[in-house]
Amino acid sequence: MCPDVLNMHEFELINKFKGFQNLTPRVVRGIGDDAAVLALDRKRYQLFTTDMCVEGVHFATGTPAHKIGWKAMAVNVSDIAAMGGRPTCAVVSLGIPSRTRHAVGLTGHIEFPRRKPLTGNSMCPDVFTRGLYQGLHACARKFGVSIVGGDTVASDKLVINVALLGEVEKKYLVTRAGAKKGDHIFVTGPLGGSFKSGRHLSFMPRLKEAQKIVRHYKPTAMMDISDGLAGDLRHILKASGVGALLAEACIPLYKDVTLAQGLSDGEDFELLFTVPSSMARKCPFPVVGVITDRKGKLMIKDRNGKEKLLTLKGFEHC
Amino acid sequence: MCPDVLNMHEFELINKFKGFQNLTPRVVRGIGDDAAVLALDRKRYQLFTTDMCVEGVHFATGTPAHKIGWKAMAVNVSDIAAMGGRPTCAVVSLGIPSRTRHAVGLTGHIEFPRRKPLTGNSMCPDVFTRGLYQGLHACARKFGVSIVGGDTVASDKLVINVALLGEVEKKYLVTRAGAKKGDHIFVTGPLGGSFKSGRHLSFMPRLKEAQKIVRHYKPTAMMDISDGLAGDLRHILKASGVGALLAEACIPLYKDVTLAQGLSDGEDFELLFTVPSSMARKCPFPVVGVITDRKGKLMIKDRNGKEKLLTLKGFEHC
Repeated sequence: MCPDVLNMHEFELINKFKGFQNLTPRVVRGIGDDAAVLALDRKRYQLFTTDMCVEGVHFATGTPAHKIGWKAMAVNVSDIAAMGGRPTCAVVSLGIPSRTRHAVGLTGHIEFPRRKPLTGNSMCPDVFTRGLYQGLHACARKFGVSIVGGDTVASDKLVINVALLGEVEKKYLVTRAGAKKGDHIFVTGPLGGSFKSGRHLSFMPRLKEAQKIVRHYKPTAMMDISDGLAGDLRHILKASGVGALLAEACIPLYKDVTLAQGLSDGEDFELLFTVPSSMARKCPFPVVGVITDRKGKLMIKDRNGKEKLLTLKGFEHC
Repeated sequence: MCPDVLNMHEFELINKFKGFQNLTPRVVRGIGDDAAVLALDRKRYQLFTTDMCVEGVHFATGTPAHKIGWKAMAVNVSDIAAMGGRPTCAVVSLGIPSRTRHAVGLTGHIEFPRRKPLTGNSMCPDVFTRGLYQGLHACARKFGVSIVGGDTVASDKLVINVALLGEVEKKYLVTRAGAKKGDHIFVTGPLGGSFKSGRHLSFMPRLKEAQKIVRHYKPTAMMDISDGLAGDLRHILKASGVGALLAEACIPLYKDVTLAQGLSDGEDFELLFTVPSSMARKCPFPVVGVITDRKGKLMIKDRNGKEKLLTLKGFEHC
């Protein structure tokens, strides 16, 4: 049997290769959360994450360069925020298409002879690359990130990879594993339609909100919503060994977004988190459900009070 | 004027965008060396580097997957070694071609309808990805690296990005800036023909050698040779504000490699370093030249004792 790894969910793929981690005592938490957790000092952990953005998958050909730059940095800041941390330093790798890329390549010099349209709002590679860096830098400055290094290579399509470090006070670290029966489930804002609306390019990582949450509401689990509310909540349920019941009427949606879109659209980058019921009343974000002890089961209560099972393919009546 | 950024040397490009670093006090040394240097604790600095390997540029289509994995990790280990440090933790991003990649993409689901041949020694994506991880892991284990996280996305061509952390005792940190007139110039081994021979895929990062050098020979500057001896020595000359005189007869070359190839072939990944003349006699590596005070001038003495100027285009008689 030869399964296609790319038809697996990334989560399965990651689990499949956990055996290759080569863990050492300095690794507090490796593969499987928004960021890795590493020993730093008595009071703090270091966080380490990476995200690759590819033309045609994470942004359309023709997207303005500074928006691509912003997004490439912002998705990583969002990961650090979701662990309760603050970002510190980043390295950036760029794979850039070129009409005549002189790379010290396999046979000395490689040239791509065809004229390829450059992604972005300019056909001029210099202006384009400057735009990319401006977007990266705008997001970096906003969230206190230093860009300390990088790599630039030739690539058929534009690829941008950011690896980001962060720090978190030990007492504020939140992972996906910790949600308990009775905890209330929150999101930091409305969901759905991120791609269609272009919000996925200009979203604001919820760093301020995350800091407020870890300081005041003792969250038991947290992550950012990159694969859709339903898909990402499943990660928390799996990591925490619990179930959940969502309330359809409580899920905040953008205008013209259906419930199904709100549950499954990717790249909202709002935070999804759970808070003990004792703290829930004080928490000023929209509550969308409650954690149950029905391990792995994700249910949703419709507007008529009926509970349905949420499967990967949609709803199932119980 | 609209210069093509990819026709610039990467070094120029990096300098061009240094203004976008947003440096903070925790950054001891940012863009412009083999790795960034970050504050860690009283005795140690943290090192941070990244390298992107792209199909058709850094490895040919058809290269066995485990070799690609090894190289992607090894080039980063080499960067950490060149700063006098030891690697610790890595995150790995994979952009993998697929026949049917179901990505939560711009329009929900994106599919690449054509059957594309996979890079590597297997048409089976699962076997291929496992091979990649085996190569990554083999190198990681060899050099004490933990793989703590990653990202997997769809990409037209195979792209693999590794970001690597390391640590260095403050007293052992070596940068490119520090070479002084009279210092002797060394390399750790023979040069040239790395692509043609396939050595660029299976090279052994010079971590052990680097540790020996920083502990015993007080190097004043060090880097790994990725762009060829002449090109990389220029980086040291520029960063240190000095010149150099190479001795043709002393440059160690692989069999069937010409002097020109030995000077300019990329991806040797031997270390290039300078040592004060007082320590040079003890240093057991091949000496290839001496640092001069002719700032920016790279000269070479031929076998007849004649000195020539080494330019980017070749030799010039003085």
